[in-house]
Amino acid sequence: MRPASEDDILAIVSRYFPASHPSLLLGRGDDCAVIQTTGPMAVTTDIFAEDAHFRQRYFSPYDIGWKAVAVNISDVGSSGAKPSGLSIGLTLTGKEDALWLESFCEGMKALTDRFDTALSGGDLARSPLLNVCVTAWGELPEALPRGLRRGVAQEGDILFLVGRVGLARLGLTVLEAANDGAAVQDALAAWPVACAQHLRPMPLAFEGMAIGSFAVAHGLQDRLGLMDVSDGLARDIPRLLNSRQLGLGADIQLAEEMLSDEIGRYCGQQGLDPALFAFEGGEDYALAGTCPAEAWPALEALLSNLAVPFSCLGTARPGPITLNGTAPASAGFDHFSA
Amino acid sequence: MRPASEDDILAIVSRYFPASHPSLLLGRGDDCAVIQTTGPMAVTTDIFAEDAHFRQRYFSPYDIGWKAVAVNISDVGSSGAKPSGLSIGLTLTGKEDALWLESFCEGMKALTDRFDTALSGGDLARSPLLNVCVTAWGELPEALPRGLRRGVAQEGDILFLVGRVGLARLGLTVLEAANDGAAVQDALAAWPVACAQHLRPMPLAFEGMAIGSFAVAHGLQDRLGLMDVSDGLARDIPRLLNSRQLGLGADIQLAEEMLSDEIGRYCGQQGLDPALFAFEGGEDYALAGTCPAEAWPALEALLSNLAVPFSCLGTARPGPITLNGTAPASAGFDHFSA
Repeated sequence: MRPASEDDILAIVSRYFPASHPSLLLGRGDDCAVIQTTGPMAVTTDIFAEDAHFRQRYFSPYDIGWKAVAVNISDVGSSGAKPSGLSIGLTLTGKEDALWLESFCEGMKALTDRFDTALSGGDLARSPLLNVCVTAWGELPEALPRGLRRGVAQEGDILFLVGRVGLARLGLTVLEAANDGAAVQDALAAWPVACAQHLRPMPLAFEGMAIGSFAVAHGLQDRLGLMDVSDGLARDIPRLLNSRQLGLGADIQLAEEMLSDEIGRYCGQQGLDPALFAFEGGEDYALAGTCPAEAWPALEALLSNLAVPFSCLGTARPGPITLNGTAPASAGFDHFSA
Repeated sequence: MRPASEDDILAIVSRYFPASHPSLLLGRGDDCAVIQTTGPMAVTTDIFAEDAHFRQRYFSPYDIGWKAVAVNISDVGSSGAKPSGLSIGLTLTGKEDALWLESFCEGMKALTDRFDTALSGGDLARSPLLNVCVTAWGELPEALPRGLRRGVAQEGDILFLVGRVGLARLGLTVLEAANDGAAVQDALAAWPVACAQHLRPMPLAFEGMAIGSFAVAHGLQDRLGLMDVSDGLARDIPRLLNSRQLGLGADIQLAEEMLSDEIGRYCGQQGLDPALFAFEGGEDYALAGTCPAEAWPALEALLSNLAVPFSCLGTARPGPITLNGTAPASAGFDHFSA
């Protein structure tokens, strides 16, 4: 099929995303959309760029649309907000045909439908590499005027994890090693859970909103911390604890039974430590949080009612971060590291 | 100097842009920033991409920062909203050093200071070409709940222009023709007004807000149309009039005395029609609008008090768009045209 023109692209987008939505006072088609606001609004921007965050060799257009939206909705949800809208800066290569764009829109729409999020508009540009820059926003309760955030932990607080870590790293590892289409198919067949977690992570936004409501109900707006684990626990736990300024660390427990079977199998084959592999993994889009120890039983009861695995990771205390009793020598991900 | 690391970049950004701002309940550093909302909010996204929108050969880092913000603030202002915040998806090549980044931030800051706009956060990525994707938002008066927009004109309405058109096209033309640093300097010296308009357009946001207040004061929220002229009058007037659906056109008058001297001089040298050159030009970031004829004298009085040129372009009537009495065979700009 021939590459789509700008008018074709806009017509396809319009077929998938209605211009009107309860959260919009004015939809696409003007210089600005207009949002109906209800109170404090959480806002985030995440870039999803070819060869930095994904490769077209193993990301289908559906996956690209899905993940570009997922990483943003994850941020909105981890602040305790209800995702309500997003705007997209879409830099295409000019080679995309109607089929590609329809699949891309379907991937985005799977998540905007699930979270009832409006596509308010955006912009198109052309460049040799794909770049999808999404800004998403969501409504916070009036009683949670700064959202859930990092750096509120004190000594003795419980560290907790909602969702699994390490799978997306495994998916990335096996998909990166697959040099051609057949090898990609083999990787998808051999490591289905890990590949799905890398290609199409499900943002835990309903879980973040539930934890936000819990914080309000228990008066813990400034004492319950939450973030999404996008760069791996190894990098994100120090951010959650604000270790650099507060000097807090923890003895993190990440038992093998908390990890997915695929991680155990892969690390067994490669002679790696599964817990360390999962601890260092990035792009999990799990939620990591802290709460006062006395609130943990009630929060644990809440989390038990959500259909997602969770665990206590340890207790905040002054000192370094250790993993299962030893100090990991690890790093995490920096797009600008050499 | 050595290329900046991710931490270096964030430290430089923090030196230029405070994390706190009256419009922010929570500033940079978490998964989301939190915006204090006051009512309807206009939101827009514009990509500013290397080799699609600018070339590093003649755009300084200061110019890149300036223009990436300017094109977004222009959209917010043209809806009648007060720009209050922006979020930036910044894809760098990894070669930028501290000096480059400081200059880039200075260019952005010149406009965020002028319009008292917060930088709420954003994201960093790395790719072979620069890509600056900004989402900006602004507060609308409660009495202007959908903002100023296109497609509200009726037969007999006055078309008006605030600001000048054609200069940015001239700047683009002469800068594109400059093959090396010396030639760029020559172009800047020979066509200073045109080059400045292309490199560092000043968004007419205060003017847009004033026209929004005028619409509210005169009960014209649904009868006064406004947009920014980003793709040239030739493409944007049909959008403003919603010509495709409403069948409206106009006899546009663009007299030579309304055009800048540099356009007259350049078109004289090249044997071009200055009015057609200006009519087809893009990236002007002027404002084009429509208003009922009976309101025009009052609006004209308001515009006379603003420190920016303005003119009446013609009167909306059924039929085609003509320029100074003849039908232009023109086009405008499509990133995806062949």
